[in-house]
Amino acid sequence: MTDPLVVFTPSGKRGRFPVGTPVLTAARQLGVDLDSVCGGRGICSKCQVQPGQGEFPKFGITVTGDALSAFNSVEARYDEKRGLKPGRRLGCQATIQGDVLIDVPAESQLHRQVIRKDASSAPMRMDPATRLHFVTVEQPDMDAPTGDAERLRTALRDQWDLDGVTIPLPVLQELQTVLRKGDWQATVAVNHDEGILAAIWPGLREAPALGLAIDLGSTTIAAHLCDLATGEVRASGGAMNPQIRFGEDLMSRVSYAMMNPGGSDEMTAAVRLALDELARTLSDEAGTDPSEIVETVVVCNPVMHHLLLGIDPTELGQAPFALATSDALRLGAAEIGLISAAPGARAYLLPCIAGHVGADAAAVTLAQAPDEAEEMTLIVDVGTNAEIVLGNRNGLLACSSPTGPAFEGAQISAGQRAAPGAIERVRIDPETKEPRFRVIGCDAWSDEPGFDVEVTGICGSGIIEAVAEMRMAGLLDASGLIGSAEATGTERCILEGRTHSYRLWADGDREIRVTQGDIRAIQLAKSALYAGARLLMDEAGVETLDRVTLAGAFGAHISPLHAMVLGMIPDAPLDKVTSAGNAAGHGARMALCDRSARHRVETLVRKIRKVETAVAPRFQEHFVAANAIPHASAAFPHLLAEVTLPRVSFGAAAEGGRRRRRRA
Amino acid sequence: MTDPLVVFTPSGKRGRFPVGTPVLTAARQLGVDLDSVCGGRGICSKCQVQPGQGEFPKFGITVTGDALSAFNSVEARYDEKRGLKPGRRLGCQATIQGDVLIDVPAESQLHRQVIRKDASSAPMRMDPATRLHFVTVEQPDMDAPTGDAERLRTALRDQWDLDGVTIPLPVLQELQTVLRKGDWQATVAVNHDEGILAAIWPGLREAPALGLAIDLGSTTIAAHLCDLATGEVRASGGAMNPQIRFGEDLMSRVSYAMMNPGGSDEMTAAVRLALDELARTLSDEAGTDPSEIVETVVVCNPVMHHLLLGIDPTELGQAPFALATSDALRLGAAEIGLISAAPGARAYLLPCIAGHVGADAAAVTLAQAPDEAEEMTLIVDVGTNAEIVLGNRNGLLACSSPTGPAFEGAQISAGQRAAPGAIERVRIDPETKEPRFRVIGCDAWSDEPGFDVEVTGICGSGIIEAVAEMRMAGLLDASGLIGSAEATGTERCILEGRTHSYRLWADGDREIRVTQGDIRAIQLAKSALYAGARLLMDEAGVETLDRVTLAGAFGAHISPLHAMVLGMIPDAPLDKVTSAGNAAGHGARMALCDRSARHRVETLVRKIRKVETAVAPRFQEHFVAANAIPHASAAFPHLLAEVTLPRVSFGAAAEGGRRRRRRA
Repeated sequence: MTDPLVVFTPSGKRGRFPVGTPVLTAARQLGVDLDSVCGGRGICSKCQVQPGQGEFPKFGITVTGDALSAFNSVEARYDEKRGLKPGRRLGCQATIQGDVLIDVPAESQLHRQVIRKDASSAPMRMDPATRLHFVTVEQPDMDAPTGDAERLRTALRDQWDLDGVTIPLPVLQELQTVLRKGDWQATVAVNHDEGILAAIWPGLREAPALGLAIDLGSTTIAAHLCDLATGEVRASGGAMNPQIRFGEDLMSRVSYAMMNPGGSDEMTAAVRLALDELARTLSDEAGTDPSEIVETVVVCNPVMHHLLLGIDPTELGQAPFALATSDALRLGAAEIGLISAAPGARAYLLPCIAGHVGADAAAVTLAQAPDEAEEMTLIVDVGTNAEIVLGNRNGLLACSSPTGPAFEGAQISAGQRAAPGAIERVRIDPETKEPRFRVIGCDAWSDEPGFDVEVTGICGSGIIEAVAEMRMAGLLDASGLIGSAEATGTERCILEGRTHSYRLWADGDREIRVTQGDIRAIQLAKSALYAGARLLMDEAGVETLDRVTLAGAFGAHISPLHAMVLGMIPDAPLDKVTSAGNAAGHGARMALCDRSARHRVETLVRKIRKVETAVAPRFQEHFVAANAIPHASAAFPHLLAEVTLPRVSFGAAAEGGRRRRRRA
Repeated sequence: MTDPLVVFTPSGKRGRFPVGTPVLTAARQLGVDLDSVCGGRGICSKCQVQPGQGEFPKFGITVTGDALSAFNSVEARYDEKRGLKPGRRLGCQATIQGDVLIDVPAESQLHRQVIRKDASSAPMRMDPATRLHFVTVEQPDMDAPTGDAERLRTALRDQWDLDGVTIPLPVLQELQTVLRKGDWQATVAVNHDEGILAAIWPGLREAPALGLAIDLGSTTIAAHLCDLATGEVRASGGAMNPQIRFGEDLMSRVSYAMMNPGGSDEMTAAVRLALDELARTLSDEAGTDPSEIVETVVVCNPVMHHLLLGIDPTELGQAPFALATSDALRLGAAEIGLISAAPGARAYLLPCIAGHVGADAAAVTLAQAPDEAEEMTLIVDVGTNAEIVLGNRNGLLACSSPTGPAFEGAQISAGQRAAPGAIERVRIDPETKEPRFRVIGCDAWSDEPGFDVEVTGICGSGIIEAVAEMRMAGLLDASGLIGSAEATGTERCILEGRTHSYRLWADGDREIRVTQGDIRAIQLAKSALYAGARLLMDEAGVETLDRVTLAGAFGAHISPLHAMVLGMIPDAPLDKVTSAGNAAGHGARMALCDRSARHRVETLVRKIRKVETAVAPRFQEHFVAANAIPHASAAFPHLLAEVTLPRVSFGAAAEGGRRRRRRA
């Protein structure tokens, strides 16, 4: 008589097993993805399966009622205590008695796939580096006096096939207490990426292990506290980067490090403290303890990367912009200041692409996966330095471009950071030339009822929209000159010295104007961004883009239309210009929840060809040509199919006027 | 024409190489042990060789004058600057032109053998885990923007065949500065045991790397600062273990940890600070900086081991005496408090044998190598707990025995630690019964001119000699009773209550007596020691010993004859009872200087069979029988061939007297 046939779905894996084989054993032998924390002791319930009944012609199998052993006392006790869904069995208890079809529901799969709501990013696969394992450890024996750590390692080898797991000193320090508290049973969190034991708890741990995905930006730190079993985000939050007090933008922080002995260490201490505080805050929010965090993943730009690691960033401030280290790093979480996490918690830092193209750009690339698509995709992470990636499955290029801080509201007369009170959206009526706007902290537009907020300035997305709207309303010509009141027909255009400003808002003495200087600052920034993108297109030998993705917290707030009117980015189908949201943060979550994502990003970064804008002569040419709004020579067919840009010109008149006065 | 034949001595390795092959290259290809730090650049001079000339019938080779290329400019420059011994060549410069015999002098061998003056210990082989390598690192390139760390790793791979070297964070933090200071040349210290870069210096480092071998005892910490190239001890020194303030002996420290919350951490902080201070002191003495220390090796007993690691030692104070970890440990030196060492310096802790038999006993076993001899050897490390190892090449056994602190002068009426003022040697004239003694701090004996020192007490070796001398002088009978003045014929025997004391010294009011209570305390201690040794002999099935080694700082001061008169150890040929000096410290140096010693001790410890005295019924029997001096039943033939022990008996008379008094 042949052994019963067992077919697992959804994998379709099949094999014959002797009568009496536990379903979990069969699954393991076939390599079926069936979870188990307790290793088959019937206590963790992770290995739940759903046996089918009847005919399954697709699988060539007929299942009778007694294909599995009867519901046993372990299952009954579990059902009574926690409840099993109808038809469900524990894979470690149910044994095979006849041909059977066994479905592994999603929640019992270790490597389940989690589809994101945000379809613009790659789906999230679950294969976390850190997993929980329940172990029974032999008690100490005076005649064979090995240490508790050695017996724990033996248990991991014998019960989980995990050989040579390293137990770091901070875990060793609590080992004896925990093992005795759990009466020689314990749940350990093992980082399979490194073979390191990250945490240990007495007895069977019911709760999942937690991980922290951190997007460490120059201005803000965003973090997600994630369930490492399901990928679920248990709490999300942000904090200001406390390094702002040492310098608003990255270069001023590099300067601070160069000018002040110990300045780099000061900034390191500040950001590490902030990370740990954020870990504690998010744990509070999720109703848990930061010591439950067994792993963290950090993405950040190269300067933040170095400052977090305690490496002086001076070299990043001058050519050739040499990184101290570019590869992905695996460290103790405590080494980067996460002292509230589990004592043996690990930290993974994504690799940096180049001295100006950081682990954040690597994370965005991982999340957007342009290397898996046919479409020629441009990814732009806008910040003080724009990080730009271009390519498709045939290859990727990256560069950074020194846009300066104008896009973040700096160098703008009424500029401010994106905070309550800042104008963030602007519309100008092309007929009346009257503006309306929205302010952070209030949902109503300025011409709507309910608009009641103190206006304090204009932020990055606000100034971009303002400039683009001025261009579309005919207040600004292609060269970037603001027209006079006479030329534009609105009193909002005011002469200031030899140039004009546009009054966006006034309340008594207080005013917010877009000045000619603001326009020049935005032109410089956008020219740099455009030139960087165009340089990559030259290098790739392409003239058109299939898709443009704006990444970063800032990218989420830029209107694609306005960005293109401004000529920040090369022309592309407008419906293909999208925001990736916080793609860097999503990339960090991917690396946290899926080991293979780490391998992917490490391989990817090695394959990306880096282009240095600082030394490319064509960069300068592109930069000059990109000064016009949207561009001096490029056609922008996709943009012009959607909007009409008034053919105004205020330059000749103004220049002529001035020249005339000088001659007079 | 066949290629020239090259023969290296002393290895005898030989091979044929094309004309023009550098000697260093030939040596490497043949696996000849020829040192090189600069990797063949002609700057480190480590690869000096001595070519032979003439006929070498033993090797079947005739060498003519032009067997090697002519002395070149690199060699001439080196000779001018530093001086080359006559006939010496640089192996990286001299190339093979004809058949040649090349001697590698001892100082050019990396794995040279250093013979110790102290013949009782195994010779020291040089094969340090940490070695220096000179590298030239590629400069950063904007078009291939890898990190400095990655380019350094590439250099190590390409220039030294070292793949995947880990650069710890503290080294990363100084990497950029050092590489630029050395103009992209650097010398790195690589720990080959772990594949970790421990330190980096700009340019070519001429000085050797240093290592620190530490013997961390309960009372004192001894350390040797060693040259990792030659094994030479650059400075040696000791410090008191500051944990003494928490408890004199180990058990009182364990109690302190159990009774005081945070007490364990306090003791950890104290001992770590002391280690770092000692590292700084020894570096000062050697005229160097502690940051030159790239590696440390620590041996210690299990309680010190746990306290150093920050592990609460409570479990070691109660059965089953479970170690938190027993295997050898490889850690960052900073993790055990050596913060003044090189930022990436490593620490190696030898394995513990059992809960009461520590890494110090493992180090002694490594240094004494009883496993390589035919002789049945007993090794005793005397302390508060005696650690005992017995065996030969056929197997080893180990146990610990709770001798208590009497051997260290505690529980003795006039006892004190071995410090200036303590009586350390005692002789009693068998005729006159008059004593003479020597005191720590004065070289003269008490009956010699120049004896001028304040006597403050008696230390461990002093009380052992005193008791043994009393036995030999007929002042003490086999049962351990001190005789009366009448029975012994000396007024130095004084009635104290119902027993007698022997007055060793008096000065005015101050006296030092050996009391009956002192004798009892020593009897308890020595019985435990003897019983432990005898138990191991039972387990091994042997009745006689070929060799006894007394280890530990204390062992160095015990006279073998007196120890045997006392019956501390089983009978053995007296000339085979020797002190191993600080064998634990020597074992630590071996593990520091010779990687294979680590492998050996790790293997050895796994093979040692542990015997737990606390649960062995025969231990109690042996303990009782060992109460007599030297023993109630064992014959001690070797001892009695050397000394005559008076057949006195004070028990019957004294007992009789008392009994009589009671009856009266």
